[in-house]
Order: sequence, then structure tokens, then C-alpha cells
Amino acid sequence: MTALDITSEDATLETAPTRYIEGRGIRFAYRRLGPSTGTPLVLLQHFSGNIDAWDPAVVNALAADRPVIAFNNAGVGRSSGQTPDNVAAMARDAVAFINALGFSEVDLLGFSLGGCIAQQIAAEHGRLVRKLILVGTAPKGGEEHLLAVLQEAFSQTDAPDPRLPLFFTKSSASQSSGLAFLKRTQVRKDDRDTDNGSAVTDPQAKALLTWCATPDPEHAMLRAIRQPTLVVSGSHDTMLPANNAYAMFKELSNAQLVLYPDSGHGALFQHNEIFVSHVRTFLNA
Amino acid sequence: MTALDITSEDATLETAPTRYIEGRGIRFAYRRLGPSTGTPLVLLQHFSGNIDAWDPAVVNALAADRPVIAFNNAGVGRSSGQTPDNVAAMARDAVAFINALGFSEVDLLGFSLGGCIAQQIAAEHGRLVRKLILVGTAPKGGEEHLLAVLQEAFSQTDAPDPRLPLFFTKSSASQSSGLAFLKRTQVRKDDRDTDNGSAVTDPQAKALLTWCATPDPEHAMLRAIRQPTLVVSGSHDTMLPANNAYAMFKELSNAQLVLYPDSGHGALFQHNEIFVSHVRTFLNA
Repeated sequence: MTALDITSEDATLETAPTRYIEGRGIRFAYRRLGPSTGTPLVLLQHFSGNIDAWDPAVVNALAADRPVIAFNNAGVGRSSGQTPDNVAAMARDAVAFINALGFSEVDLLGFSLGGCIAQQIAAEHGRLVRKLILVGTAPKGGEEHLLAVLQEAFSQTDAPDPRLPLFFTKSSASQSSGLAFLKRTQVRKDDRDTDNGSAVTDPQAKALLTWCATPDPEHAMLRAIRQPTLVVSGSHDTMLPANNAYAMFKELSNAQLVLYPDSGHGALFQHNEIFVSHVRTFLNA
Repeated sequence: MTALDITSEDATLETAPTRYIEGRGIRFAYRRLGPSTGTPLVLLQHFSGNIDAWDPAVVNALAADRPVIAFNNAGVGRSSGQTPDNVAAMARDAVAFINALGFSEVDLLGFSLGGCIAQQIAAEHGRLVRKLILVGTAPKGGEEHLLAVLQEAFSQTDAPDPRLPLFFTKSSASQSSGLAFLKRTQVRKDDRDTDNGSAVTDPQAKALLTWCATPDPEHAMLRAIRQPTLVVSGSHDTMLPANNAYAMFKELSNAQLVLYPDSGHGALFQHNEIFVSHVRTFLNA
């Protein structure tokens, strides 16, 4: 444990320094929050997102009683390297990052594309992953409406941020919690993460589309996952519908399913307090 | 508030005296636990069950921070009257009981047949019901395999209690939690509830079968429910499958869905600690 580790206990996503560590030739940018002991919870981010796209309300609350690590995978934000165009390579890079930090056992929380990566890691590295949380994601061969929904969202030129139509439903309650979410992500002013545009989003989109276009009729990927898993989705996720979550729940050997009302892809941010409570109950059980 | 109300704060399901109150000409047997203030949580029991069939691990934990009322509907246990053969009449009787206690607003937790009754009450009495918890139940017109499963369970003459095959899966983990559940229900020795046999189970079975055999293609019943609802099911409920829970979640306007792994109809007893945590999170939100 270093002096830095100790000072990190009081840090928040908004105040923690961005750190760097090298693995597989990649210099990974990350922030570390929470206590220095306990099973670390590693966060795997969605398509196009970087560290600053996580909701401080979720990350800080989870870090109240466990180490939480937010990082950028290869090529994303201020991490070096190239963003691969497939989930398997993204999983390999994420494992290199986890190994570089010296962790022998972690919990994973994967959101959207990050949930695909989390499935791949859990299936391939049974000992490395203790518990798995899959949010707003799809199984291999799952249902996706990414391009149609992205196109519609980016055509809404009056939306202050594409995440309002992409992550939240059209109800006023959902939209207003979306605005509150965006505000929370904008509190940090200095040392913010970078947006690397199509150098990230092109290969990430290919990875996610390929994942969903690759049939897995025997559910080999899900059946290789033996870890306790919490599957979470919003009721009206337009990109990766809740049917994916129900299908994953049914095929996983040890899964709990939680679905939230009047919510889209960003259900975990909209229902952040309840989501944190559910994650805690799951991880502490 | 009476002296009895105050002493009930320390009572448990196993130690609380059985009380009686009259409404609609029926003398209802009930037990009251928990603090005297707060929105009372009224429990609606499953087919063939009485007050002593509730799991003390669930009821006592829920009563730690809210009033909890377990009761027998008309004709069940030591409640007087005839058990009706339809859900609407059972709902009418349950409302008479709630009114007799003088409650103007309650939360309802309905399990199995009790979940059908809870839906009917919530749909018809918008102001009486604040929040709704539906466990191991079905919507009107829902999927049921009651007779086949009951027949199989009662043919297993080696099972010490039909609830082991009916409420738990065949896995050793589920069966052993089933044995622990049965043991918890047997702690109370005196002032135990009665089992009135077919005078209860015949009309109750008819009510449940009729409920599921009555089509509700437009989901009028579910759409009349405006209260926040928590829908819960076990992954392998053989009598009222988890598909019912997913279908209810999709049609209800404000529902949260929670499904548990490796569990049957008695998922709430098998996963009692997690279930209590989820109920608390839901009721306190």
C-alpha cells in the first residue's frame, strides 16, 4: 500500500487524481476510490464513454465501502494504444490492466459494451472474477438497435447531449433525472478525460455490432460464466432492450435479475440510489 | 394506540399473540408486529397457507422498521366465515379486515394467491394501497401449472412436507434452505394456527385457477394499478412461472422486477435476507 492509496480513501470521482499504469505496452489512465482493502470493483464503460462519463452518484456511493476503479481501456480517453474492434481483444486489454494493478480477484461492473467485455472476462478468467454485474448489455448474439437509435438521437439537434435521448425515456421524470445526471458528470473541471472521436467509436461500434451479430445458440459464453451475476436493465432500453437481460438471467447458472421502471439505457444513473443499494446487497451477500 | 400496540413492538411472529377483529361479519385472526407508527405492511398469504406458514425470518426482519400485519382471510385458520371461491370476494374480505383495523393507507405484500388478491385490491382501491409487492404470482389470464405440480408434489410420499418440492428447486442448496424454512415455521408451539383442509383449499384452488383461466388481453387489471410495484419471482417457479413476473413488469406502469437464482415458488423464503433488503429498499424509496 502506498501513500497515494491511503489518500485515495477520501477522494471522489470528481476529485481523485487520474493515475497511470502500464500493462501489455498500454499506458492505462484510471482513478481509484474508496478504501484500500476489500475486493476491488472494476468498472467497464459503455460505447464512447470515458472515466468522466461515469455518474459520480453511483461511483462515489459504491466506493463508500469497497475499492472502486474506473479506467479507460486501450485507446480511450488518455489511455495509450489502439481501441480494438472486437470484444475479445478489449477483454484481453482490460485483464492486462487488472493484472498491472496486482489484483488477484476483482468484481466487475460492465455497462453496455462494458457488459460484453465483462462477460468475456468472467467466462475466460474464472478465478480472477469473484462477482459480475451486467447493466444495459446483451449476450453474444443478443438483440440490438444501435444504429437506428444512434441515428435518431444525433438527429435531435435540440438535445443538449445525445445521452438525454439515448439513456433516458421520453417521460419528464426520466428526462429530468437525465439532466441531473449530466450535471453531476460536469462537476469536475480540471484533469478531465479526453474524447477521441471516431478513433474510439468506430472500432467500438464494430465490436458491439459484431458481438450481437455473432450467434451463440447454445449460449456457450453465458454458460461458461459460473460467478454470481447481477443482471440489470431499464424497462425501455431502446438500444439493448430488457429482453436481453431476461434472456441472460435465464441462461446464467447463478444470476439475479433487476429491472427498473420508466428507464432507458441509463437506468443505473436514473435510479442511482436504488441501483447502488441493489449492487451493495448483491456484492455483500 | 392501545397498550397491546405498544407491547407488540418487541413481538415476533413466533411470540405475538393472535388477535381478533370483526369486519363484514367475519372475525379475522391476525398478528401485529413492529412499531406502532409508519405505513403498515399487510401480508396476503398463499393457497392453503395460514399465519404460521409465513417465514419468521422474512416477517420479523420486515417488522424491524414498520408495522407488519399477518392475518387469515375469511374461513382460513381461526378466522370465521366461508372461504370464497373467487379473488374478487377475497379482496373484498381483505379490505374489510384492513378497514376494521382503521388503516387509511397500507402497503400490500401478496404471495401467490395472495398476489392475485393484492392486484385486485390495488386496482380497485387506489387510495388505500400506497405500494404493492407481488411475489410468485400471476396476472389475470396468467400461466399456471398448479394441478400438475400439486399432484406430483403430493405423490412424493417421502417428502416430509409438500412445500419442499412445491416451494424449492431440486438443487441441494434450495432443498436445504427449504428445510431451514420449515424449521423456522415450526418454532412457535402454542397458539398455532389451524389447517381447515378442503373447506379452504377447494374454494382457493377454484379462485386461483379461475383467475388464471380468465383472459385479460388488454391487461385491464394491471393497467388499473398505478401504485409503485415490486414484482418478485424465483427462477424456477414450477406452479406460477417467472414468465408471469416478467409479463406483469412489462404491463404495469411503475414496476420494478427482481428475479432470484435457483429458486422456486418459495424464492422469498429461500433468499430471505436479500428479499428483505429488496423490499426495504423498495418501500423506503
